Amino acid sequence: MARPKVVIVGGGFGGLAVARGLARADVAVTLVDRRNHHLFQPLLYQVATAALSPAQIAQPIRAVLRRQANAAVVLGEVVGIDRENRLVLTADAGPIPYDQLVLATGASHAYFGHEEWRPFAPGLKSLDDATAARRNILAAFERAEIATDEDERRALLTFAIVGGGPTGVEMAGAIAELARNTLAREFRHIDAASARVVLVEAGPRILPAMPPELSTKAEAGLKRLGVEVRLGAAVTLCAADRVEIGPDVLACRTIIWAAGVQASPVARWLGGDVAVDRAGRVRVEPDLTLPGDPSIRVIGDAAAVLSAEGRPVPGVAPAAKQQGAYVARDIAARLGAQAPSGPFRYRDQGNLATIGRGEAVVDLGRVRLSGTIAWWFWGIVHVFFLIDFRNRLSVSLDWIWSYLTYGRSARLMTEAPPRRRP
Amino acid sequence: MARPKVVIVGGGFGGLAVARGLARADVAVTLVDRRNHHLFQPLLYQVATAALSPAQIAQPIRAVLRRQANAAVVLGEVVGIDRENRLVLTADAGPIPYDQLVLATGASHAYFGHEEWRPFAPGLKSLDDATAARRNILAAFERAEIATDEDERRALLTFAIVGGGPTGVEMAGAIAELARNTLAREFRHIDAASARVVLVEAGPRILPAMPPELSTKAEAGLKRLGVEVRLGAAVTLCAADRVEIGPDVLACRTIIWAAGVQASPVARWLGGDVAVDRAGRVRVEPDLTLPGDPSIRVIGDAAAVLSAEGRPVPGVAPAAKQQGAYVARDIAARLGAQAPSGPFRYRDQGNLATIGRGEAVVDLGRVRLSGTIAWWFWGIVHVFFLIDFRNRLSVSLDWIWSYLTYGRSARLMTEAPPRRRP
Repeated sequence: MARPKVVIVGGGFGGLAVARGLARADVAVTLVDRRNHHLFQPLLYQVATAALSPAQIAQPIRAVLRRQANAAVVLGEVVGIDRENRLVLTADAGPIPYDQLVLATGASHAYFGHEEWRPFAPGLKSLDDATAARRNILAAFERAEIATDEDERRALLTFAIVGGGPTGVEMAGAIAELARNTLAREFRHIDAASARVVLVEAGPRILPAMPPELSTKAEAGLKRLGVEVRLGAAVTLCAADRVEIGPDVLACRTIIWAAGVQASPVARWLGGDVAVDRAGRVRVEPDLTLPGDPSIRVIGDAAAVLSAEGRPVPGVAPAAKQQGAYVARDIAARLGAQAPSGPFRYRDQGNLATIGRGEAVVDLGRVRLSGTIAWWFWGIVHVFFLIDFRNRLSVSLDWIWSYLTYGRSARLMTEAPPRRRP
Repeated sequence: MARPKVVIVGGGFGGLAVARGLARADVAVTLVDRRNHHLFQPLLYQVATAALSPAQIAQPIRAVLRRQANAAVVLGEVVGIDRENRLVLTADAGPIPYDQLVLATGASHAYFGHEEWRPFAPGLKSLDDATAARRNILAAFERAEIATDEDERRALLTFAIVGGGPTGVEMAGAIAELARNTLAREFRHIDAASARVVLVEAGPRILPAMPPELSTKAEAGLKRLGVEVRLGAAVTLCAADRVEIGPDVLACRTIIWAAGVQASPVARWLGGDVAVDRAGRVRVEPDLTLPGDPSIRVIGDAAAVLSAEGRPVPGVAPAAKQQGAYVARDIAARLGAQAPSGPFRYRDQGNLATIGRGEAVVDLGRVRLSGTIAWWFWGIVHVFFLIDFRNRLSVSLDWIWSYLTYGRSARLMTEAPPRRRP
């Protein structure tokens, strides 16, 4: 009898954990992704702010699974799922048959019903997003240097970040440091250090997933870096030249979107009878299978799951990894005719966010850290979780170099320079 | 009296050498480039073949000149020169007045009158070119893995490199190594090591600037790596699915153009009365000034210069650097009312090309090296000339890592993935 076919869509933290968890199972694994690399998303903001290069936080999925003989990798764009015939339909790689299907496609941005804001307020999910943000941020300083109008110059040197979660906080802190430390003495007509960085959060505090005392500390840390933090400030318009917060108009040329997330089009692929939450995440059973179809599982940011305590499992990397490992165990157990694994249990490993040089906040439940010790903890944890030895070494060296010199290793503006040669 | 204004167009080897050479002169230097970075072009092929990241071979021009108080950097696209009023006209940064103008804009590709080949046979001059080539090369293997037609698969696994100069030789060797070492065990449906790499050269030997014995050694080295070398083979057509060499048709999906160069549009900027050679390079006086207009100098790949011995100065990095240093000295001397420097003299520092792991050829005039010793020499020279300490360290570490593991640090396909999410 042919080995059961397990198809995984998505090579992020969740999908890769499923594939690796099945390394010893007697199955044929196929992992499909439309990109060739696994991305360490928690450090994406460092690519966007020129501290790291794209390759330092990404690994070819094929290289990660090279030694796993039961796994094949397909670079392809999934366009639908034929549940009747158990086929994953792709645009370029033909139909891929499955016995067990795991959907781990992650999330993209949501603009709260204002899709027209997207071109003016791009978000940060892929390496292309990050290099585009890097280009925009560096270009704003360059354009300010040659601007002849004082209002224009001030608007170019104003950076608005929408959303006070970890990504927003980290972007705000990193842009402030880029302006005040790295670029400070490089321009002749502007003072890069005078750049205004404004973090706009609709709720009453930043880092809402953290205990209030750490939110307060993070806010104080950002303010020390010169970041303006606006709380209770719901954005009502994003445009090419401004952000509006009700009657309040902030003239700026760079907006970074770090607010809403929206699940990838998994629900659409699965058909109309699938229940989703407000963010488009597929509601799954406690064992992460699709209600009524145990051959399909949805994990990570694409899934809406309640933890054993009845709270929603957060859309963070450790949750996706845990779900991936759980699904791999569950598939292996059921194929081996063992009892199913029982419901998925989320183990909260804590929350971290870095603010700037020597400044971070860490919530490990009973233990809460802030300041320099939290920053070292943050750095070590992130290097530890990077996927291979080489990236760990290269990221560590770049960080040490930046720490000593205030330099940034990847201040490149590539693709679509301001104007191309005729 | 205001300090004389020296405007330099282009932040490559030549332009940067002029700026740095004027560090102590009592002048106001403005360096204009349409990119924000100086590029170490000799290692561009390593970005194209996934061995290095873009940021490892590039430095922000602004950072390079940070401590030079008399130098300003402008990111802008030059669109013309108003010689009467002594203005450099830019698309985005307004007109820039000059007293002395140095044009160091380099070269782009020429297709021998067949511009229609360009989309099918892209060349390698910028970081964007290199990341595009990287994406195309890696995508060919990915598409071969899911191809269902055997002819299609074979064409996808065939790589044609047009031009047997250093870039062509280095690309051919690096693609062969990528296929045979790095990717060899990562695919399940194809044998990456079976990829065909064909180097097409119109002349009678590769590396025509080298002594014949080194050309022969380089050819033997490429053949050991499995590269097919076709000499006396003039390309008559480049298309999406093939290269034609007269009656001979090579079905392939990836073509890399490493043949003709063409000077940037300097001559057009200067107006109709300027004499150029066949490649569009501006003919300049022995002191590198424009005939009849000593306030304008053209250097590097944009200039056609005869050396003191009457031979054309080659379009290589050391020549551009020497010209830049010469021009800086000459400008400083004339401003100081000293005698002009006499004609530019090119000092040939030798020729190097690497073929693959442990294989290079080096021509230093009397000393000629090949094999492993030449390869070490090549590596040390290139690391030495990289522009800052951090890049030297980071490139060295990546090379050591690749040497030990056969891995490549930057196997990313970014920007324009095969198909984007709808």
